Amino acid sequence: MRIRIVTEGASGAICRCMTSQIFPPAADKTALERGTTIAPRFDANGLVAAIAQHADTGEILMFAWMNDEALKLTLDTGVAHYFSRSRDSLWKKGETSGQLQVVTELRIDCDQDAVLIKVRPQGDGGACHVGFRSCFYRVWENGALVEREA
Amino acid sequence: MRIRIVTEGASGAICRCMTSQIFPPAADKTALERGTTIAPRFDANGLVAAIAQHADTGEILMFAWMNDEALKLTLDTGVAHYFSRSRDSLWKKGETSGQLQVVTELRIDCDQDAVLIKVRPQGDGGACHVGFRSCFYRVWENGALVEREA
Repeated sequence: MRIRIVTEGASGAICRCMTSQIFPPAADKTALERGTTIAPRFDANGLVAAIAQHADTGEILMFAWMNDEALKLTLDTGVAHYFSRSRDSLWKKGETSGQLQVVTELRIDCDQDAVLIKVRPQGDGGACHVGFRSCFYRVWENGALVEREA
Repeated sequence: MRIRIVTEGASGAICRCMTSQIFPPAADKTALERGTTIAPRFDANGLVAAIAQHADTGEILMFAWMNDEALKLTLDTGVAHYFSRSRDSLWKKGETSGQLQVVTELRIDCDQDAVLIKVRPQGDGGACHVGFRSCFYRVWENGALVEREA
């Protein structure tokens, strides 16, 4: 169960955050930034940002979102789970495509609103539904987007 | 000037997005995913996610947000600009700390709601306000967060 509350964030600003019973919020700014307890700051939709980076090449594969259940499943199983905003549901990446992501490392940032997972993609090694290895297959060059993998 | 509208997104789902006059929205899903025109999908707050990766080491330095002005300034000047949600204002990273980020490459993802910039941090070479090189200075190990830079 999650409860939507309005609370004071670490920065002192009022934060319309979603609290999680799986991952209770940090007590204060020091706990948030330097603590050993994971205490993600879920946004008003109950989500934190998630960046997937290839464990071996360092390539950024995709950007997505996790709710508390997705994060817990990722930590517990070692396989990346996300929350699909378009489908409004838990999403085990690769369940249909075979592009499962085995997590080798999980990091969280200073204010705990973004996680970074290092992964080894399974199946065909890709991550993007368009067919590229990475979702970031377009680079800005001379005022236009050019399709070019890193 | 930005106008908040409710429109149909590329996925067919109703999307409460903010349109930008600097970067008009893509006409359809094909233009969004395969087009050469940058057409970021700004969220209801007028923001897209931004990931900063070190151009030389591949290390993820930080996760932040850009509004249309920040993105335009980043493209035009080659120096990273973000939008600070806590200060509710444009944020030229490093303006006070000296940790300016010189952008060597800018990429956008398949559905254009996230940009990836490869940067060379100036000043002391760091990116995090806590004092670490990267904001992702904590790794999950055996049920706890441990401070350890990559």
